[in-house]
Amino acid sequence: MLSVAEANDCVLRRAETRSSSRVSAVDACGLILAEDITSDVDSPPHDKAMVDGYALTTSDLPHTTTLRVLEEVTAGDVPTLTVVSGTATRIMTGAPIPAGADAVVMVEQTRSMTRDNIESVTLDTVALHAGANILPRATSLRRHDVVLSAGHLIRPIEVGLLAEVGRAEVAVLPPPRVAVLATGNELVPAADVPAAGQIRNSNGPLLQALVARAGGIPLDLGIAPDRSDALGERIEAGLSGEVLLLSGGVSAGVLDLVPAALAAAGVQQVFHKVQLKPGKPLWFGCLIDESCSRLVFGLPGNPVSSLVCFELFVRPAIAKMSGRSEIHPPRREGALTRAHVQRGNRPTYFPSILSEQAGNLTVEPIDWQGSADQRSLVAANGLAMFPAGDHDFSPGDLVSTIPL
Amino acid sequence: MLSVAEANDCVLRRAETRSSSRVSAVDACGLILAEDITSDVDSPPHDKAMVDGYALTTSDLPHTTTLRVLEEVTAGDVPTLTVVSGTATRIMTGAPIPAGADAVVMVEQTRSMTRDNIESVTLDTVALHAGANILPRATSLRRHDVVLSAGHLIRPIEVGLLAEVGRAEVAVLPPPRVAVLATGNELVPAADVPAAGQIRNSNGPLLQALVARAGGIPLDLGIAPDRSDALGERIEAGLSGEVLLLSGGVSAGVLDLVPAALAAAGVQQVFHKVQLKPGKPLWFGCLIDESCSRLVFGLPGNPVSSLVCFELFVRPAIAKMSGRSEIHPPRREGALTRAHVQRGNRPTYFPSILSEQAGNLTVEPIDWQGSADQRSLVAANGLAMFPAGDHDFSPGDLVSTIPL
Repeated sequence: MLSVAEANDCVLRRAETRSSSRVSAVDACGLILAEDITSDVDSPPHDKAMVDGYALTTSDLPHTTTLRVLEEVTAGDVPTLTVVSGTATRIMTGAPIPAGADAVVMVEQTRSMTRDNIESVTLDTVALHAGANILPRATSLRRHDVVLSAGHLIRPIEVGLLAEVGRAEVAVLPPPRVAVLATGNELVPAADVPAAGQIRNSNGPLLQALVARAGGIPLDLGIAPDRSDALGERIEAGLSGEVLLLSGGVSAGVLDLVPAALAAAGVQQVFHKVQLKPGKPLWFGCLIDESCSRLVFGLPGNPVSSLVCFELFVRPAIAKMSGRSEIHPPRREGALTRAHVQRGNRPTYFPSILSEQAGNLTVEPIDWQGSADQRSLVAANGLAMFPAGDHDFSPGDLVSTIPL
Repeated sequence: MLSVAEANDCVLRRAETRSSSRVSAVDACGLILAEDITSDVDSPPHDKAMVDGYALTTSDLPHTTTLRVLEEVTAGDVPTLTVVSGTATRIMTGAPIPAGADAVVMVEQTRSMTRDNIESVTLDTVALHAGANILPRATSLRRHDVVLSAGHLIRPIEVGLLAEVGRAEVAVLPPPRVAVLATGNELVPAADVPAAGQIRNSNGPLLQALVARAGGIPLDLGIAPDRSDALGERIEAGLSGEVLLLSGGVSAGVLDLVPAALAAAGVQQVFHKVQLKPGKPLWFGCLIDESCSRLVFGLPGNPVSSLVCFELFVRPAIAKMSGRSEIHPPRREGALTRAHVQRGNRPTYFPSILSEQAGNLTVEPIDWQGSADQRSLVAANGLAMFPAGDHDFSPGDLVSTIPL
């Protein structure tokens, strides 16, 4: 039986990025850039006023401190007159500096007056060096500069920069489409009232929500009964995406038809069962055709096993297929708040409450009725990892954790 | 001038949750539940087999270890026969335990045979106590139990639980709609080529992306020129949402018409200017009508000021309006990797690179050309907070940080 690390390696080796597609820069947030981005502008595009005030020539100072106002330039305007000795142009933040001017005095350090229709300004300061309150053209970036490279994660900051350099649309690596199919004769949709022997399909909605949170695009395939023809049909539909998640039908019972139905659809088994608790019956296979490989996960039918397998194997696959460099969520060590008994030859991932206290992480394994107990799971915000082997853990012992 | 904490208090006091609305449980992920959720089922709904095997009566053991097989029950079936002494029912994981049976022996611990059309099973073990491999009805939850309370954050785990108890739809607190309007004659859309004196609107896309990342619903109002009528029209449209973000037009220049246009729309100023760098010109106001209050932020026109004001004031407002209990992102202390000079009477939020190394956070203020420098900002993943006052920070000094 494969270890978790070996199984992970099998999955990630087959997880490929999709070909790039173009989306609006705002929609690209959270995705990986698939092209180098070159600026088509200088930024700022002109020597720019950094304050509201008067553009002047510092060679007038300190002897001339009353200047005739030529015109007013606001952001979006273009100056029409050259500032010469004895003159100034009233200027607003962001506006282009007129020819001849080499500094801007802040409006708060001036008094303006108008007499005989001629406007003038008197400076309260002469402490002004050339370049004062001017941001020179191309300070921040130059035309033809590569401002972002392919592979970069697009965050809101990058969305702003893309807009500045003229990219309303960009090429990104699209996240994988992940089809979710719950299997089992006993399942009815959440909106239905279960008859005797039936339960509602909770894994389908759980997995769709996990896919969306992991950055994948969930596709809901509903519920397939345990019949080869129905399973085959849904599996075919599910293979239109890059990943297919099946829940249920992979343990050893007589109605566990899923592996056979997958084989019939051309999906080759890569592994079945992993040294892991819960989640041991995990099935993983791959359909390879000319265009790309599709990953198929047969997840155990109970919610916590599904959740653990998703966190350990599906989430990293979605991250890699999305082109992200951080494939595995960061793991942190935390100190147990209570004793915990670990038994058996499989590492155990136990739902736990992780709390941050003054920079230290504490880990409280939840009171829990076993892997079908969704209700108690609500208290958990992480998984604590207990290595294989019989060991009695004491309060204060350090364990590795995965945040949920 | 208000301090950051005072200004924050002014904002949060006016940030209200919307009335609840119903959404599908999968779409509710990330939102706050607005109703108590009661289960309409026991879970499991019946005494349930936890393994594939045979349901039997332990009173037969240890003397009788070969049992006649009555029928087969799989998940979704209902048993039709009562298990009596000397008999067993073949049962699959998840299926209901037949009447009369009080334990399930795992299939791996049995041998079955069929002779004269009569099927029997022989047990390899007699170490079976009453209740073995059976999950009793209602172990995890009981009908009429409140399984989730109003105010609870819905994560994928909760989506699964909601489905289990029959809730395909739930009442949630909808996140605020946040309209984004960039103002300025100098602005053109990202897709256009700027003429002389013009620049592209990068704040609009930046703010839309920030809103979406913060869990709000962004509404793009485009660009308004610096004209009272145009501004008034767009502001009116923007007040259809719960929050309006204006970018630009709140410093002291002659064309800073925004505060006047807001007053004309009935928006009352709460504060203008905050003891903060960058971001001092921040304007905040409120429109109160019979239904609810709308928050209006006039953000400074340059991208970094916008970003800082968003993180300090808008993000917490969106969190509170979404009903979340964690209003402020957690702040962490980190050690500076280089010297930093802080001057002036305003606390400074400086774009920085936060790195986690063996549980310790390091903080590297970026090389940065000032608040219009979007390109250098791309390196930053956090803000370092330097308190007001003149102080020379040394490498290793601890500073408070906000992750981006």
